[in-house]
Amino acid sequence: MSAFPSSVVIREVGLRDGLQSIPVTLPTSRKIEWVQEAYAAGQREIEVGSFVPAKLLSQLADTAEVVAFAKTLPGLLVSVLVPNLKGAEKAIASGADLLLVPLSASNAHSLANLRKTPDEVVAEVARIRAARDAAGSRTLIEGGIGTAFGCTLQGRVEVSEVLRCMQALLDAGCDRVSIADTVGYADPRSVRELFAQARAMAGERFWCGHFHDTRGLALANVFAALETGVNRFDATLAGIGGCPHAPGASGNAASEDLAFMLEAMGIATGIDLDRLLALRAKVAGWLQGQTLHGTLWRAGLPKTFQGAVEA
Amino acid sequence: MSAFPSSVVIREVGLRDGLQSIPVTLPTSRKIEWVQEAYAAGQREIEVGSFVPAKLLSQLADTAEVVAFAKTLPGLLVSVLVPNLKGAEKAIASGADLLLVPLSASNAHSLANLRKTPDEVVAEVARIRAARDAAGSRTLIEGGIGTAFGCTLQGRVEVSEVLRCMQALLDAGCDRVSIADTVGYADPRSVRELFAQARAMAGERFWCGHFHDTRGLALANVFAALETGVNRFDATLAGIGGCPHAPGASGNAASEDLAFMLEAMGIATGIDLDRLLALRAKVAGWLQGQTLHGTLWRAGLPKTFQGAVEA
Repeated sequence: MSAFPSSVVIREVGLRDGLQSIPVTLPTSRKIEWVQEAYAAGQREIEVGSFVPAKLLSQLADTAEVVAFAKTLPGLLVSVLVPNLKGAEKAIASGADLLLVPLSASNAHSLANLRKTPDEVVAEVARIRAARDAAGSRTLIEGGIGTAFGCTLQGRVEVSEVLRCMQALLDAGCDRVSIADTVGYADPRSVRELFAQARAMAGERFWCGHFHDTRGLALANVFAALETGVNRFDATLAGIGGCPHAPGASGNAASEDLAFMLEAMGIATGIDLDRLLALRAKVAGWLQGQTLHGTLWRAGLPKTFQGAVEA
Repeated sequence: MSAFPSSVVIREVGLRDGLQSIPVTLPTSRKIEWVQEAYAAGQREIEVGSFVPAKLLSQLADTAEVVAFAKTLPGLLVSVLVPNLKGAEKAIASGADLLLVPLSASNAHSLANLRKTPDEVVAEVARIRAARDAAGSRTLIEGGIGTAFGCTLQGRVEVSEVLRCMQALLDAGCDRVSIADTVGYADPRSVRELFAQARAMAGERFWCGHFHDTRGLALANVFAALETGVNRFDATLAGIGGCPHAPGASGNAASEDLAFMLEAMGIATGIDLDRLLALRAKVAGWLQGQTLHGTLWRAGLPKTFQGAVEA
């Protein structure tokens, strides 16, 4: 049986994937407090927002301000999501360390959500790469392949199509590629199969796994991906985020539960679980009335729990 | 990476582990309805109750009646829990196919819950085995090792102690041995390590994994156990059951979510998910006001979902 990575990065995406699906606008000051306390709890990669037109996602209209603050924290890798070249130009100008361009492997989902085919997204990524290079910027470009296991419009998505998209993204100049189960269609066996092939294809450019807990399998899927050597996962505090087609359904993997699983396995995350749980309680207060998820906050850490010993 | 079993049995323990921790007494007629519909949905192993003194668990005082009904269903393996020889004699008299004797690997938990040390439980199992043989009964004896990863009284439990208890149970005449994470202390790496050793020790007498979802890891733990070749897991409809020390915390793995995971992986469970979800809705109505768990009931099956193809 396979070995596990000795350490794993949990990228906090609650400020983007989480907040964009919640009908609450957090003031910029609270987002900054969230970033600061996540950093204090040991998180070193945070997706702080999205450069999309403010009329589409007013919750994230202050992304440049949040990036500016986040960039003051030493050693924090600051990510943003961008849907197109215009957003990428803003991301590059903001000084973000990484911009993630989403691509839907499901053609139907791509047309419905991005109004582009997957191949048109790839072409946009090539333009973003050219713009980044022309600007002399060091902002990393991540191609994030969503609906990689299926979606509610199309049903199942074939592995071959995901891998085709991934190769195209790499060829178009992505520094990083990632795979996302956007609506909870993955299962651990499919994860194992796809991630093993994706890692073989992308090598060190394979970056991150992103699993939604829509059908309760997020952590099992993380475990299966871990076994293929993946060492970076997206998650959201309190598991916020989720699927507009399933109101009340679980959102992303909960950062605190994921950190607990990894630390319990002896895999270092750099995260102080008590501090992360304290932040969760604070954010839960800000989001009162919203459906939150996760289990650790209620059960607490096991007695005599020892997390991973950092190397 | 390891192969998976082609089929897995989900033993429904909601009528015992679930109901015993809920302050609602289901009438016998409803328990019978539950057994009947679980059977109709394809479940072929059900723990229908417990032979404990009625003054301790009045919810389960009708176990003999439920066994009698369950035994009318062809091919159903009818299990009951018994804490001691007196309960085992009732179980044997009832005609149950299998009686499970719980043993706590945590000495502190064992004394607090069973008022016996693990070794005293082993001695009781030897008496149960003698009584079963003397009666000429075919009722199988299962030794179920609980708190196998730790407990709230003692904290961590050592693998060596679990294996010592398991060997003692086998030597005392158990036909089957099982491992339970009673209060959500397991993680997938620990599961892999313990289950691989337990399977090597017990061979074909290794029976079942039982995982609570107290800290959200039940399905990840099942996946890790599957990789060691275990092909039988306990679960409860709607994830009922749970830990008296963590009110509101998640209970057992939810049968419907577990069945979904397995079927999505192409592992046959024999379960009709739509029928199981319909039964969940019915039982949820009976248990109104109680905290239920699970995710599939809300999200529904993925579009174009195909379960395992039965051999």
